[in-house]
Amino acid sequence: MILGKVIGTVWATRKDEQLKGMKLQLVREISEDGSDKARVVVCVDSVGAGVGETVLFAQGSSARQTELTRNKPVDAVITAIVDTLDTP
Amino acid sequence: MILGKVIGTVWATRKDEQLKGMKLQLVREISEDGSDKARVVVCVDSVGAGVGETVLFAQGSSARQTELTRNKPVDAVITAIVDTLDTP
Amino acid sequence: MILGKVIGTVWATRKDEQLKGMKLQLVREISEDGSDKARVVVCVDSVGAGVGETVLFAQGSSARQTELTRNKPVDAVITAIVDTLDTP
Amino acid sequence: MILGKVIGTVWATRKDEQLKGMKLQLVREISEDGSDKARVVVCVDSVGAGVGETVLFAQGSSARQTELTRNKPVDAVITAIVDTLDTP
Amino acid sequence: MILGKVIGTVWATRKDEQLKGMKLQLVREISEDGSDKARVVVCVDSVGAGVGETVLFAQGSSARQTELTRNKPVDAVITAIVDTLDTP
Repeated sequence: MILGKVIGTVWATRKDEQLKGMKLQLVREISEDGSDKARVVVCVDSVGAGVGETVLFAQGSSARQTELTRNKPVDAVITAIVDTLDTP
Repeated sequence: MILGKVIGTVWATRKDEQLKGMKLQLVREISEDGSDKARVVVCVDSVGAGVGETVLFAQGSSARQTELTRNKPVDAVITAIVDTLDTP
Repeated sequence: MILGKVIGTVWATRKDEQLKGMKLQLVREISEDGSDKARVVVCVDSVGAGVGETVLFAQGSSARQTELTRNKPVDAVITAIVDTLDTP
Repeated sequence: MILGKVIGTVWATRKDEQLKGMKLQLVREISEDGSDKARVVVCVDSVGAGVGETVLFAQGSSARQTELTRNKPVDAVITAIVDTLDTP
Repeated sequence: MILGKVIGTVWATRKDEQLKGMKLQLVREISEDGSDKARVVVCVDSVGAGVGETVLFAQGSSARQTELTRNKPVDAVITAIVDTLDTP
């Protein structure tokens, strides 16, 4: 999984039938020190993350292993909201 | 999924049988502010996107989870046409 | 899929049994304007592309969805020979 | 697989049900000479690696081929703790 | 597949049960002219490649399509030893 920060929401009325009802979040990759990276990914949200929260997201076929995304054309999904990074 | 902008169409008469009848769109990756990125991907279009439109596309095995692309040698598919990006 | 140009052929006598008889083409990624990119991928050829031709290739598990490559340890396959790119 | 070094642990109480009980380790990619790379990945740990240890991690669908991660929304897993790199 | 050169071997006693007995080779990506690239991948070897040899390796789920790696947590496998690159 990759660390990211939710930075917004994507609205799309014309889309594949299987995406209907899914919340699509804009997630910016971040470093372990919280600094921004250049890459932004659109993720389906399976955990109710809000804008500004630090999250983990899974990509590829693993993004289809949640109840919400199974067999859907989804290649990125938020799977956790991060409380803390413990880097001793 | 990744944000992109449709910039053209690919024409190919000699191709794998399973691609027959599929519209192949040239999609440039863009940033969340709409600026161009260097990477261009050829996507099958499952939603009828036109040149100039902002879209989402899915990659990898997830690109085969639409009715149009199932079990086909397709690794990128447009799954939504973006109305707005809400980045508060 | 990604745009590429066939730049050569790979010869290998010692290889996985399942690759026997497959033509392995060196394919350089190119931009939509035809200029070279740094990345070169070795693709199985399912459409009979020759050196110098512009092609599309699929990667990952999607590269195993052709008759030639099904269930084989192949992660890149040429699926089309490009006639024209229409970028209005 | 990729060489990495465990640099910390991720704590997350709100997460996909299927991640419950899994240890999530922050792993920095490293070069074969041990020097740091920029990319940091969050991996499930199937071998009990501690902070500071050099590990191998697998990504993508292959990350779901351990007993711990099968069918889970996990795209990176530590599969080995490295004793030595023999580079003659 | 990607061109690489075997540069060494990884030794790991603590590892996922399914990796037992597999030879893990350090493979550096190379260009089609033989020059080194920065990326180094740890591959399972299914063809008996030695240090210094030029090889092809497959990644992702395709790396699990050899007899040796089927259903294993392996995301990179050497599938061929290159004799020559014919780039006219």
